[in-house]
Amino acid sequence: MPDEALVALAERLQGVCLGRGLPVAAAESCTGGLIGAAITSVPGSSGYFLGAVVAYADAAKGALLGVPTATLEAHGAVSAQAAMAMATGARERLEAALAVSVTGIAGPDGGSPAKPVGLTYIGLAAPSGVEVRRLVLAGDRAAVREAAAAAALAWLIEVAEVAGPEAPSA
Amino acid sequence: MPDEALVALAERLQGVCLGRGLPVAAAESCTGGLIGAAITSVPGSSGYFLGAVVAYADAAKGALLGVPTATLEAHGAVSAQAAMAMATGARERLEAALAVSVTGIAGPDGGSPAKPVGLTYIGLAAPSGVEVRRLVLAGDRAAVREAAAAAALAWLIEVAEVAGPEAPSA
Repeated sequence: MPDEALVALAERLQGVCLGRGLPVAAAESCTGGLIGAAITSVPGSSGYFLGAVVAYADAAKGALLGVPTATLEAHGAVSAQAAMAMATGARERLEAALAVSVTGIAGPDGGSPAKPVGLTYIGLAAPSGVEVRRLVLAGDRAAVREAAAAAALAWLIEVAEVAGPEAPSA
Repeated sequence: MPDEALVALAERLQGVCLGRGLPVAAAESCTGGLIGAAITSVPGSSGYFLGAVVAYADAAKGALLGVPTATLEAHGAVSAQAAMAMATGARERLEAALAVSVTGIAGPDGGSPAKPVGLTYIGLAAPSGVEVRRLVLAGDRAAVREAAAAAALAWLIEVAEVAGPEAPSA
């Protein structure tokens, strides 16, 4: 079972997205499916959740999300550029209104001085464009993954609350 | 965090697949990412796990896994045919040696006399071809999803133990 905090976020997201008619997708690397698992733990999630791509290997980021090899070679899989390309790819391929992406270094290995364990980029693709946030999360592998998934769900809620067909600004 | 039993299965799977050099992929519908989350909870899983497609909506099963619309229309998304097409699609698109798929009715809604809550099909695509198993799992939504993910991981282990470049029969 996903963590209770993730499920609580998924319930809030579902309420907002069902109310506003917003189909949602995700592209997960270091979280490996945690976001999808949390979202789909809530009955009725099929009403707004289209699916997710768990692109763990670099080849999967290209094949399933269209992330250019040049982006991965120039900036690495854990980069703002990769996160944005992943979110954009998920939004387009799954025909979602909103798509979130997560790429990071969950540890315990794989860190470096320039890219320490806990470094996480979250991308958010919406009709208005794509944005990215950079986080450095504390804790062990499980804690980093859960905090990354929580941050992604929280950002989705934030954007969903002001987006969509029923939003005053739409 | 994924369930301890799932993580234990993921650890066993990793041991077998790293030892035999078997890249693995998954296609998840009702489990929604649980399989990927369990696999990637284990440090070092990037050594064999390529990724997963969480194809929750039917459109995602087509766009990301190449499941034919005709298959979904004729047999439904929860069917042996869909499970086999999902596993085959994941294996081909992620260039995996082994790919597992899960499609089922986790409940509480969506069941019918012909397809009750708990009905689950698991597909397994390997170099030798694709197979499917039909299960009817007991319990609530969380129990059905976890049992389905566990069955998928256990079947992957079973096949990996007799497959791969280091297997005597290869």
